[in-house]
Amino acid sequence: MNQVVETILNHRSVRNFKNQALDREQIEVIVKSAQAASTSSFIQAYSIIGVTDQNKKDKLAEIAGNQAYVAANGHFFVFCADLHRHKVIAELEGTDLDDSIESTEKFMVALIDAALAAQNAAVAAESMGLGICYIGGIRNDLEAVKEVLKTPDHVIPLFGMAVGYPDQETDLKPRLPLEHVYMENEYQQDRALFEKQLDDYNAVTSQYYRERTGGKREDTWTGQMAKMLGRKSRMYMKGFVEKQNLNKK
Amino acid sequence: MNQVVETILNHRSVRNFKNQALDREQIEVIVKSAQAASTSSFIQAYSIIGVTDQNKKDKLAEIAGNQAYVAANGHFFVFCADLHRHKVIAELEGTDLDDSIESTEKFMVALIDAALAAQNAAVAAESMGLGICYIGGIRNDLEAVKEVLKTPDHVIPLFGMAVGYPDQETDLKPRLPLEHVYMENEYQQDRALFEKQLDDYNAVTSQYYRERTGGKREDTWTGQMAKMLGRKSRMYMKGFVEKQNLNKK
Repeated sequence: MNQVVETILNHRSVRNFKNQALDREQIEVIVKSAQAASTSSFIQAYSIIGVTDQNKKDKLAEIAGNQAYVAANGHFFVFCADLHRHKVIAELEGTDLDDSIESTEKFMVALIDAALAAQNAAVAAESMGLGICYIGGIRNDLEAVKEVLKTPDHVIPLFGMAVGYPDQETDLKPRLPLEHVYMENEYQQDRALFEKQLDDYNAVTSQYYRERTGGKREDTWTGQMAKMLGRKSRMYMKGFVEKQNLNKK
Repeated sequence: MNQVVETILNHRSVRNFKNQALDREQIEVIVKSAQAASTSSFIQAYSIIGVTDQNKKDKLAEIAGNQAYVAANGHFFVFCADLHRHKVIAELEGTDLDDSIESTEKFMVALIDAALAAQNAAVAAESMGLGICYIGGIRNDLEAVKEVLKTPDHVIPLFGMAVGYPDQETDLKPRLPLEHVYMENEYQQDRALFEKQLDDYNAVTSQYYRERTGGKREDTWTGQMAKMLGRKSRMYMKGFVEKQNLNKK
C-alpha cells in the first residue's frame, strides 16, 4: 500500500486540537491542494473562507451547536458553493446567464466542485500530520453564517473544516460493507441480500459501540439512521437556497 | 512537499487510456479509499456502480456526448447520491422518514458525501499510477442512465469516473489565483479587486491556450464561462431530481 492510500485509509475525524495555529505555508498548501481537484467544465464554482477572527469563530461554534472545536483549532476553513463569481462574469461579459446560474444542475455542479476541493484539502492536511473535522453544523443557520462571513447571493456556505495538530487518538469507524456500497453494472436488485448486508453491518456497528463504551451503547447503524432522520432538521434549507437565487429552475 | 501533496498537485484529467483493465485489488483499494472519506452524521448517502459490461459502457459514452473514453478505459465508476438505502431503513425500522429524505438539506448531504468519496477514489487511483477523468456528461440524460444502471428512486447518478493506465501526457491547467478563491474572515467585498483578479487570470488562461495551440486559441476564462453558461443545459434536472423524491421540501 502506498503512502497516499495509507493516508486516506487512516482517516478519522479529530475534535481536539493543540493550541497551535497553522502557518501561512501550511494554509497555502492546503488551499492549493483544494484547487488542484477536478472542476466541472473548468467552472471552479467554489470559494474557501479561512476564519481567524476569534469572535467570528466563536459565533460559528455557537451556530454549529456549541461545538468547541469550531472555536479552538489550528485553522478553520469554510467551503462555499459559489456562483457569485459567474454572476459577476455575466455583468462583465454583458450577457444574461441567470437561467444557467439559477438551475438545479449548476447548484449540483457547485456543490460537487466545492466538495471535491474540500476532500483534497482534507487529505493534504492529514498528510502533513494534521487532523481534520468536517463541520456540517454550520448549516444549522446559514442566514447567521451569511452574516458572519458576509457572503453575497449565489453563495452557499456548505460546511466548515476544523484543522489542527491532533490532541487525541480516535478510532477508525467501520464503514458499510464494500459490496453494499459498490455494485457492478446495475444497482442491486435483490432486496433480501440488500437487507442482509444492512443486518451484517448492524452487527459490526453494535460491536464497535459496545467495545468503545464498555457495553453501555450498542447502537445499530439502521437504528442510528432512523433516529437521526426522524428528527427533521434544517427544513429551511430549500427556502434559503432559493433566496440566494440557486436551485430555482 | 510530501508524496501525498505531490500526487494531489500533479492532477490532470486523462482521456486516453491503454487497453488494460484494472484488477480486482485495484478496484477494491479505490472503493475502500472512497469509503474512508468523512460522511455527514455517518449517513454514507452514496453508492458506486462499476460498469464493466461493454454495452452499458457504450450507452453511457453515447449519453455523455460520444466521449470515447467513457467506453474505453481500465474501469468505469458511476458515483451516485443515494438515499434509497435510508428509505429502506425507514421501512425496516417502521418509521416515516420522508420529510428528511425528501429535503433539500439531505439532497445536499448526499451530493457532498458522494463527492468526498469520489475525490478520495481519484487521489487513490492517481497514487497508483492510474489516470482519471470525471464524466459530468452522464447528466445529459439521467433518465437514460437510470435505465442503464437500474437505479431506484432516491438515487441520482451524479458523475462517472473513467480510470485507467494513461496513454497520453497532459498539461496542468492553471487555476484561479489563490487569493481570489481563498479569502480570510469574510467574503471579498472589494469589487474592483475582485474584477482585477479575474482580469489577471484571463491573462494567464489566454497565455495557456496560446502556448498549447500555437496561437490559434487565446480564450479568456471569463469568456469561456460566459459561453459555457450561455448555453442553457440540463434544465430538466430540477424535475428529474424531484421525480426521484429528492430536493422537494
